[in-house]
Amino acid sequence: MKMPAPDAAILADQAAIAAALADIVPDGVIADAAGLSPYGSDGLTMYAQSPLAVVLPRTTDQVARVLAWCHQRGVKVVARGSGTSLSGGALPLADGIVLGMSRFNRILDVDYDQRIAVVQPGVTNLAVSQAVAHRGFYYAPDPSSQIACSIGGNVAENAGGVHCLKYGTTSPNLLGVELVLIDGTVLRLGGAGMEQPGLDLLGLVCGSEGLLGVVTEATVRILPKPATARALLMGFPSVAAAGDCVAAIIAAGIIPAGLEMMDAPAIRAAEDFVHAGYPTDVAALMIAEADGTPAQVEDQLAQISAIALGHGCTHLKESRDEAERLLFWAGRKAAFPAVGRIASDYYCVDGTIPRRALGQVLTEISAIVARHGLAVANVFHAGDGNLHPLVMYDASRPGQTEAAEQAGAEILKACVDAGGVLTGEHGVGVEKRDLMPHQFSATDLDVQSRLKCAFDAKGLLNPGKLFPTLSRCAEMNAMHVHGGRLPHAHLPRF
Amino acid sequence: MKMPAPDAAILADQAAIAAALADIVPDGVIADAAGLSPYGSDGLTMYAQSPLAVVLPRTTDQVARVLAWCHQRGVKVVARGSGTSLSGGALPLADGIVLGMSRFNRILDVDYDQRIAVVQPGVTNLAVSQAVAHRGFYYAPDPSSQIACSIGGNVAENAGGVHCLKYGTTSPNLLGVELVLIDGTVLRLGGAGMEQPGLDLLGLVCGSEGLLGVVTEATVRILPKPATARALLMGFPSVAAAGDCVAAIIAAGIIPAGLEMMDAPAIRAAEDFVHAGYPTDVAALMIAEADGTPAQVEDQLAQISAIALGHGCTHLKESRDEAERLLFWAGRKAAFPAVGRIASDYYCVDGTIPRRALGQVLTEISAIVARHGLAVANVFHAGDGNLHPLVMYDASRPGQTEAAEQAGAEILKACVDAGGVLTGEHGVGVEKRDLMPHQFSATDLDVQSRLKCAFDAKGLLNPGKLFPTLSRCAEMNAMHVHGGRLPHAHLPRF
Repeated sequence: MKMPAPDAAILADQAAIAAALADIVPDGVIADAAGLSPYGSDGLTMYAQSPLAVVLPRTTDQVARVLAWCHQRGVKVVARGSGTSLSGGALPLADGIVLGMSRFNRILDVDYDQRIAVVQPGVTNLAVSQAVAHRGFYYAPDPSSQIACSIGGNVAENAGGVHCLKYGTTSPNLLGVELVLIDGTVLRLGGAGMEQPGLDLLGLVCGSEGLLGVVTEATVRILPKPATARALLMGFPSVAAAGDCVAAIIAAGIIPAGLEMMDAPAIRAAEDFVHAGYPTDVAALMIAEADGTPAQVEDQLAQISAIALGHGCTHLKESRDEAERLLFWAGRKAAFPAVGRIASDYYCVDGTIPRRALGQVLTEISAIVARHGLAVANVFHAGDGNLHPLVMYDASRPGQTEAAEQAGAEILKACVDAGGVLTGEHGVGVEKRDLMPHQFSATDLDVQSRLKCAFDAKGLLNPGKLFPTLSRCAEMNAMHVHGGRLPHAHLPRF
Repeated sequence: MKMPAPDAAILADQAAIAAALADIVPDGVIADAAGLSPYGSDGLTMYAQSPLAVVLPRTTDQVARVLAWCHQRGVKVVARGSGTSLSGGALPLADGIVLGMSRFNRILDVDYDQRIAVVQPGVTNLAVSQAVAHRGFYYAPDPSSQIACSIGGNVAENAGGVHCLKYGTTSPNLLGVELVLIDGTVLRLGGAGMEQPGLDLLGLVCGSEGLLGVVTEATVRILPKPATARALLMGFPSVAAAGDCVAAIIAAGIIPAGLEMMDAPAIRAAEDFVHAGYPTDVAALMIAEADGTPAQVEDQLAQISAIALGHGCTHLKESRDEAERLLFWAGRKAAFPAVGRIASDYYCVDGTIPRRALGQVLTEISAIVARHGLAVANVFHAGDGNLHPLVMYDASRPGQTEAAEQAGAEILKACVDAGGVLTGEHGVGVEKRDLMPHQFSATDLDVQSRLKCAFDAKGLLNPGKLFPTLSRCAEMNAMHVHGGRLPHAHLPRF
């Protein structure tokens, strides 16, 4: 991954910049090497870079003043929630500050009549569900990192989770945000209602990976917890048979609450680690979950079982109680650390493919990884076609990091070529930035760039992420709007 | 409603413009007064304006060439689906063409494994459901105009319907579009997958009311039809009691498939027209529908009944069979024409309020309408807080049209002041354009304008709709990007 050459003048000015920011956030600026070190990487630990400084604001006003100052001074800004991004979305820049949102950690309001929670962006995903659990509610998006990942980061990445097949990713569960633009303008987008007049800026901001503004408050939808949930383990003699089974379940009109798959290396690693009761002599293991009323759950599991048996399923086990259901999931949820036990390093790839192409793409993945002298375990959000090959490598052996990176890029291209997309839920970040032209035409990327320019003409917010190149906004916006104000007196009326 | 003064030079050039467009679409240009007359209004018949010409393309290539020609020549373009907009979204301009999409009427592909349908924008909403019904599927968004309204129009307005409380408006059911920009650039946004890398242009386009581009193809999600559905009629002695009951149902964690309300004038008009078996001695009537497995439906209706009885419900009737369920809905669905029988004209207002504010807002609406010497019947998508007051007036009596228009504006302001929003599902169009500043700050509108400029710097696509004023894009985009191409050689790399 090529990193941009930092701006020497900015680097030389570090002390003065830190001092100026400390005037705005007196107890919240870190600029010493030891203090900066925890911020050097996010969840994509392959890449590391110490930032110029870290600023930890407490209020929207401080965020606005910090951004306006950086805008005026030309200092780049990388916003960071809990730093769990797996695509390097929060990777710092040597000549930019990290705006850490960890102090925005309060749940501001819960309204059960409107079924919403208003939270600060540093609140963890799980904390939202915990805050409303006593009334029987929860927050549906559930990334595997939900203990740690923040709502602000979830919004930036449009995070998903094992239940997003039925309940959607962050976007459909997000109703409004307070957003600060790079010039310090504070906007409120969306709200408690289902629909808003005007252009849908909220949808645009969700998943924009920190390139358009900084979220300082989020209003999310909370849902009633289903009355009951049960899970089904299904073992298959081949990955292709399991993939066909997934396609058949979806085509039969069933939307399970979760529909996950693992291949043999992932099954064995998980079983050795968690002892979830997985069969270790199958080529593919599927976990399906049904939720709702007991009758509905029974009905749906019966349908899924019948389809699975018709697709060559050799092992079928239904969870008998809540403890066993959680055990089934424990193996799946521990698949990443389980692979971490058998490989010194692994690189989690994140692509999406049409469900039916699973067998074919997994064959290609095996060939790609073998060509680079590496091994792979595959974990798959099968219901929505989101594949996570875990490419195992040893960072201490020369060339293996580059080989893993290269294998990951080839895997993602194979996903796109099979009719899929570059990312399922981890975002583009720095990781997939240079692959964007494999999915999008120059025209597509140019139109996206124009929107970036409409928000951040100087390109100061999280530059180097998402776009392989960014249009020179100066040429598009020779007279840019500052402070959100336009010369109204000159405007034509329609 | 003030209309802009048309461009005299364009008007004078009508014949030449029509001839040039006929070169692109040989059998599809209308420019004679009789032929133009059906295109003068859409569903908001209060306003009418004959366009310069109507162009009826058959292919994406023709759309691209027509738009590029208009872009080059500076001719305004209003795209039109079936013309059922209730906010004047397809109201023509005297100096602009109407781009009628009615010939884009084919269903291109249905993929049950992926659970998607790929359709042309002129296909009606209901036709999508009909095309997949034999396999037990349907398309969830169901505006009351679904027999007539087109998918392209649904996308432009982010259309809802009585089931959108549970199944969402168009936006969450839309997976991708082919979009032609004003300069003729053809983009493909989104696709069959749940998530896409890059900025969410699809979400931005949905509900953008024809200001950003013209949709020439849409990929929508199809859903399995619920196994069963049953409806419950509930009568209440006051509108406030019914409003509180709605809030309580939602707060209890229940998401009915539909949750509708009518006030006394609407009940009586509907019952006289359809004989649906509604009680006519109640102040408010609620219809709740549950769908799913029989057990789930029974369970949910029992819960709703208990809450209703706890809120003073005096009449409670559950549909005994499918015929009765449809009869319950027939009254509600015929409420608009039923009001049309008792008033020579009516104006359907479309605002959204917090559910709990219903009693208070309806009292205000009565006062507003009385002040203008008019009467009103209220129909309410209660579950999502979307209120449709039908203001009755007589267009043949001098001043009454203006009075109805004024009353509508005051009602919408009351909705916003009660914590609601300007529109629920009918869009802003020309109707609510001048009310946008009541909901949005100048900063909010400026940021929206910047996005409009990023797509259509000359302001040729549906000008006069949505925005009360539009930023002078020329000042923001002195060097605009033509044909989607940027001078790549000059771009900095990150």
